[in-house]
Amino acid sequence: MVGAGQLARMTHQAAIDLGVRLEVLADHEGDPAVQAGANRAIGSAHSIEDVRDLATRNDVLTFDHEGVPQEVVQTLEAEGFLVLPGSAALRIVQDKLLARQVLRNSGFAVPDFIGLGPDPERQVRAMAERWGWPLVLKARSGGYDGRGVAIVGEDDAASVLKGSATGTWMAEEYVDIDRELAVVGVRSAAGDWASYPVVETRQVDGICRELVMPAPIADALASEAAATAKAVADGINAIGIIAVEFFTTGNGMVINELALRPHNSGHATIEACVTSQFENHLRAILGLPLGATEMVAAAAAMVNVLGPADGSDPRTRLGNALTVRGARVHLYGKAAVPGRKLGHVTALGSDQDSALAVARRSAALLDGVVRKDDIGRGSACGQGEGVRPEAPVPGIGDLTD
Amino acid sequence: MVGAGQLARMTHQAAIDLGVRLEVLADHEGDPAVQAGANRAIGSAHSIEDVRDLATRNDVLTFDHEGVPQEVVQTLEAEGFLVLPGSAALRIVQDKLLARQVLRNSGFAVPDFIGLGPDPERQVRAMAERWGWPLVLKARSGGYDGRGVAIVGEDDAASVLKGSATGTWMAEEYVDIDRELAVVGVRSAAGDWASYPVVETRQVDGICRELVMPAPIADALASEAAATAKAVADGINAIGIIAVEFFTTGNGMVINELALRPHNSGHATIEACVTSQFENHLRAILGLPLGATEMVAAAAAMVNVLGPADGSDPRTRLGNALTVRGARVHLYGKAAVPGRKLGHVTALGSDQDSALAVARRSAALLDGVVRKDDIGRGSACGQGEGVRPEAPVPGIGDLTD
Repeated sequence: MVGAGQLARMTHQAAIDLGVRLEVLADHEGDPAVQAGANRAIGSAHSIEDVRDLATRNDVLTFDHEGVPQEVVQTLEAEGFLVLPGSAALRIVQDKLLARQVLRNSGFAVPDFIGLGPDPERQVRAMAERWGWPLVLKARSGGYDGRGVAIVGEDDAASVLKGSATGTWMAEEYVDIDRELAVVGVRSAAGDWASYPVVETRQVDGICRELVMPAPIADALASEAAATAKAVADGINAIGIIAVEFFTTGNGMVINELALRPHNSGHATIEACVTSQFENHLRAILGLPLGATEMVAAAAAMVNVLGPADGSDPRTRLGNALTVRGARVHLYGKAAVPGRKLGHVTALGSDQDSALAVARRSAALLDGVVRKDDIGRGSACGQGEGVRPEAPVPGIGDLTD
Repeated sequence: MVGAGQLARMTHQAAIDLGVRLEVLADHEGDPAVQAGANRAIGSAHSIEDVRDLATRNDVLTFDHEGVPQEVVQTLEAEGFLVLPGSAALRIVQDKLLARQVLRNSGFAVPDFIGLGPDPERQVRAMAERWGWPLVLKARSGGYDGRGVAIVGEDDAASVLKGSATGTWMAEEYVDIDRELAVVGVRSAAGDWASYPVVETRQVDGICRELVMPAPIADALASEAAATAKAVADGINAIGIIAVEFFTTGNGMVINELALRPHNSGHATIEACVTSQFENHLRAILGLPLGATEMVAAAAAMVNVLGPADGSDPRTRLGNALTVRGARVHLYGKAAVPGRKLGHVTALGSDQDSALAVARRSAALLDGVVRKDDIGRGSACGQGEGVRPEAPVPGIGDLTD
C-alpha cells in the first residue's frame, strides 16, 4: 500500500485478522501505519524506484491516497505488476475536472462545471452570468479536506485564482445542498459488488465532521444512491473500495466526489458492519470473496476528532473520552495540529440520534472543548467553505481521508 | 506484554485503536504478535534481565501467558515496576493446586482434590476409594489445552504418574459435567468490574473447540456464574482480564480453572461486544475507564481453527472460508501443526444456533475436512480427555489461549 496514513493503519489492523502481510510505503517512520506495525519501506510515492521496490516485494500494489503520479502507476502496470485499482481508474479520481467530465459523459448528474484555461478570470465571470454568484473554484488535483476549494463571490474570485498555473483550476456552479450522502462500496476484479448502507455526512469547513449510518432518507433515494455508486464503479472499473459522495438538492441528486480507497465515510463500518471497508478492500484486491456489508446494529454514527485550535493533544484526554459508554475510540498516532484529523469515534445505537449523541460526547471530551451540539446539515460546505487560497500544498502523507 | 502469541497479537490490534504502544517479549521473530507488528524484544520470560529490560521501556508489564516465573515477577515488583496482574494473583493461576486451595478456602465450590506427594500412587488409590474411578490427574503447572491432564482408571493411573517429580501432580474427583461455562471479566486497580455475558464452551480432547454467547442457560445460573467470577476476581485482586471456567453438574456449579489474561473464551468479544476483552485488558492495566461489555447482537458463536491432522495449512483455504457470509475469520500467522490453535472464526446471529452454524461452516472450510456437525456438549473433556502422559512440556510461546 502506497501511503501510511490512518487508512493504511486501519487496513493493517484488518490485514492482521486475515493473516495478510501488509507493507506500506511511508514518508516517515512516524506515520500512522508504521506506528501500528505495518511492514514498511521509507520512500516517496513520486519515486518510480521506491514504488517499484514495494511492488516487487508484494503480490499487489494498492493505495491509501491519490497522490501517486500517473507515470509511476502506468510504468509499473506496463512492467507487469498487479496494481489495484488500475491507472485508468486512478487517473479519474486524481483530476476533479476529468472526473466531472467522465461522469457527465456517462450520463451521471454532476454540478455544472468548466475547466479554466489561460484567462480564468474572464471564464469565471462568463460562467457567473449563467450560474450566478457565488460559484465554486477548485484546484483540479491535490486538494483534500476543503483545501483547494473556495466558494467565491464577484469580489474574491480573482484573488483565489491569482498566480495559479494555467489549466490547474476548474469552476463549478454553487449547489444549494440539502444533504450530503456517501456510498462506500467494494468491487472485485470479477465485477462482484457490495455496498454499505448510505451514510449522511456533515461537513464543517470542507472537512467531514460526522456521519450517521444509515442516512435518514427515503428508501428510494438510498437505492438510487447505491445503484449510482455501482454504475460508477462498473463504469470506471474500480477495484477495491470506492467512495461516491453525493449532494441532494431540490433538483435531485448529483455526484460530488469519488475516491478509490478506504474512505472516511466508511470508518464506521469497522464496528457497524459485518465486514469493515478495510477488510473488504483487502479481499477485493487479493481476489478473495467480498464480505457481507450489512449492519450489525440499527444505526451507527461516527465523529471525527480534529486537532483542537489551541494546539492541545487529544491523546492526553483519552481517559475522559473512554468514560462514555459505547464510544469506540480510534486514535491515529498523529501529532496534534489544529484542524488535522487525529482520530474518530464510532458508536452504535438503536437510532441515529442516540448513536450520534454518544460519539459526539466522547469526541468532545477528546477535543477538550464544548462542542456545538448540533452541526447544521446542508451547510454548503461539501464544496468547501470559506476562501483558502493560502492553503499549503499538502504532503502526500496527508492526502488520506 | 510478556509473550507474543495470538493473545498478544489481538491485544496489539486493540492497542492500535487506543494509540497505545504495545511492546511484546517474544521468543521468536515469527511469533504471532511480532508478525502483526507489535514492537518487540526477543528474549525469554524466564530471564529476569529480558523481562526487566521490557519493563524498563514501558509503563506497565502484563502477560499473555502464565509461564513467567514467580521470582521474575516478584523481583520486578520489588524493584518498583508496575506489574499487572501482580505476582500474588499470578501465583494462584500458575499452580492448579494452589488455585483449588485458595478457592476452596474462600468458600468457592471446586471439585474435590488432593496434592500428590512422594507416594502418589498410594494417595491416588486411597482417593479412589472416596471418589471412585475414573479420577483426574493434573500437572500442577505447565499444562494447557488438555495437556498435563489425564482421566485415569485403576489400570493406568500408575503409568501417568511414573517418573513425575514429587509434588508436581494433583488428583481430583472426576466430575460428571452437564455444561462447561466461562465468565470473562475485567477488573481495574480501583476495583471496578465488568463482565461479558456467560459463554458455554465445548471442548474436544481438552481443547476449547467452540462456544456460544450468551450461554443458553437460566438467568439465575448466569447471574450466579457472573457473581462468582466477580467474587473470585476481588478475592485474588485480579487486575486486567480474568477468565473463570465452570462446570455445571447435577449438584450445582464448580469452578474448574482461572486465567489472568485475555482468554480463548473471550475472543468472540471482538465482534460480539461493545468493547473487546483485549481493549478492556489494556484499559484496566493502564488505569483507563473500563469499556462496556454488552453484546451488540442477540447471539454469537466462535469456533477455533486447529491444525488439521493431515498437516495441511488452513491459510491455503482462506478464500473458501471467506465465502461464508457473516463469518469473521481471524488467523494467527502460526505454522500448521496438527491440533495447534491457528485461528478462530466468529459469527453473530439472531440466536446461538444460527451463529454457530455460520462459524462452523467457515471453520470447516479452513480445516478442509468435513466437520462433525454437532460436537456433543458435556463430553467430560474440560478436565482433559484421554491419557497424554507423553505430552511435551510446552514452550512458553505456546501457553497462550
